[in-house]
Amino acid sequence: MGDIVDQMATKPHDKLAARFAAKLASVDGLIRARMESRHAPRIPQVTAHLVGAGGKRLRPMLTLAAAEICGYQGDNDEKLAATVEFIHTATLLHDDVVDESSQRRGRATANLLWDNKSSILVGDYLFARSFQLMVETGSLRVLDILADASATIAEGEVLQLTAARDLATTEDIYLQVVRGKTAALFSAATEVGGVIAGAGDAQCRALHAYGDALGIAFQIADDLLDFQGDSGATGKNIGDDFRERKLTLPIIKAVAQADDAERDFWRRTIEKGDQREGDLDHALALMQGHGALDAARDDALDWARCAGASLKELPAHPVRDMLADLADYVVSRVA
Amino acid sequence: MGDIVDQMATKPHDKLAARFAAKLASVDGLIRARMESRHAPRIPQVTAHLVGAGGKRLRPMLTLAAAEICGYQGDNDEKLAATVEFIHTATLLHDDVVDESSQRRGRATANLLWDNKSSILVGDYLFARSFQLMVETGSLRVLDILADASATIAEGEVLQLTAARDLATTEDIYLQVVRGKTAALFSAATEVGGVIAGAGDAQCRALHAYGDALGIAFQIADDLLDFQGDSGATGKNIGDDFRERKLTLPIIKAVAQADDAERDFWRRTIEKGDQREGDLDHALALMQGHGALDAARDDALDWARCAGASLKELPAHPVRDMLADLADYVVSRVA
Repeated sequence: MGDIVDQMATKPHDKLAARFAAKLASVDGLIRARMESRHAPRIPQVTAHLVGAGGKRLRPMLTLAAAEICGYQGDNDEKLAATVEFIHTATLLHDDVVDESSQRRGRATANLLWDNKSSILVGDYLFARSFQLMVETGSLRVLDILADASATIAEGEVLQLTAARDLATTEDIYLQVVRGKTAALFSAATEVGGVIAGAGDAQCRALHAYGDALGIAFQIADDLLDFQGDSGATGKNIGDDFRERKLTLPIIKAVAQADDAERDFWRRTIEKGDQREGDLDHALALMQGHGALDAARDDALDWARCAGASLKELPAHPVRDMLADLADYVVSRVA
Repeated sequence: MGDIVDQMATKPHDKLAARFAAKLASVDGLIRARMESRHAPRIPQVTAHLVGAGGKRLRPMLTLAAAEICGYQGDNDEKLAATVEFIHTATLLHDDVVDESSQRRGRATANLLWDNKSSILVGDYLFARSFQLMVETGSLRVLDILADASATIAEGEVLQLTAARDLATTEDIYLQVVRGKTAALFSAATEVGGVIAGAGDAQCRALHAYGDALGIAFQIADDLLDFQGDSGATGKNIGDDFRERKLTLPIIKAVAQADDAERDFWRRTIEKGDQREGDLDHALALMQGHGALDAARDDALDWARCAGASLKELPAHPVRDMLADLADYVVSRVA
């Protein structure tokens, strides 16, 4: 995949950011305006801390890109881009409470700086604000898509909570969790861009499929990087997920092929959380022995290809090419 | 107000429940169906615990009543009734986490039975489900009203968090908090009933005003009952709010008239939380001395009258009379 790495001299994300610089500035303006609260200054404080913390605005760019490819003229794409970023920010606030996180994007989390209560309630406020923004577009279909995405996100989060550390977790459950965590908002972000542009059903379905596959590829790659990444590039230490007893895809695949002794190992380290010196190396050896890392990598590449293939339904467009590059890029980190 | 007490031989709430028994059964069916989750059984467990816990379905009845008065034929009123109950349930789940409550309606709270994480995420799920339900009505105006109500609710909750125990809290801030806590969902519940019935603007505004005033009257009465209620009837002990250092309306009014020594008292008991034997009695004496309890009672009665007056904009209807009785009833407890 050397050619892809070369193309990435400018990362596809940066190309998109350059292409949509003006619109992204408007989106940021909307976000700033709508996170204000006349009565409760805690709201913009918490929100600014998170929104300002170097987020990549990936979801807003997906909406702007989809609208542009489908020929949209207008500014509802900016409202929807701000909408998806608000939904994303709301889920991050709640996630950090649920995960008891103390760091995000290299900064202290809001639940640490203020308290869990503020994170919960400001998250609720941002979700309500996102809801107001999308209503302003006047499109019931957009509302329908974002309502479904919101339900999938919340359901996935609950599922993740209850399936956590349970060795009975299947790849199906994993996929459902990943859709909630990442793919549902990606696919809604791209689909609503097509919908407001008046794209046909096949194109809207293709945009949805692209976002869904991109999100899944992204998440599997993230799982893999935990076992083979370069901590300087990812900001994570090798094995963090293992130490946090997360059942990521490579582990699920290794557990599915485990013999009795191996199951005992996974039960002890993941279910019971009794981890000792050398366990991470042993886990890696088990995953390699069963080809679980390679299989997960193949899955990630398949999903990225699926994302790329979905784009063929859309009109040829330089932004379409950027989205194709983006799908390749998210897995190039593990290819 | 003896005549009102007589009319209350059957409480207005019970009359409404009898009148809408069939529709309320459909609403309960919708709630049960929509709280299901194919993937995450924790969701219906948590929801059923709360929804089944003897809630009075007051908000759903307000929607059904408003739609009926305005001549609605159809079943979107049931969807919206389930919607407002879901929003209400979602806010209760988050409130109980924020307030660290262990009891609600005489039962252990979900955050105690399961954990805070489940309460946060299931609350998010119910909010998303409510959003799906309201989209199904196909009315952008309904979505607009409920989006605004959601933002007011969340903003009020954040405001309550930051204004808590701050003696600088004014009656204006108090009203804003009460609108978030109670009145915004009451007024949205009544207004959307009129909107789906195709009622004119003046009637929809009147329905909004009724719900708003009813919610405020209800909340002020609740504040008063904390200082003069019969714990058997309210399920609360006299002075619970005081012990929890809540700046309710009677205290805000007393603080506004406090001399230096009295301010010191309020600062110690409410701001610092240093409460001693006899403080509750002293607080009651201060409020009585300044006529704060009487003034709060007058406010509650004014809001109830305002609710009743709003109804005059609506067509004469037996259900309209029940809503008028309901407004009298919520303050009859303190009159």
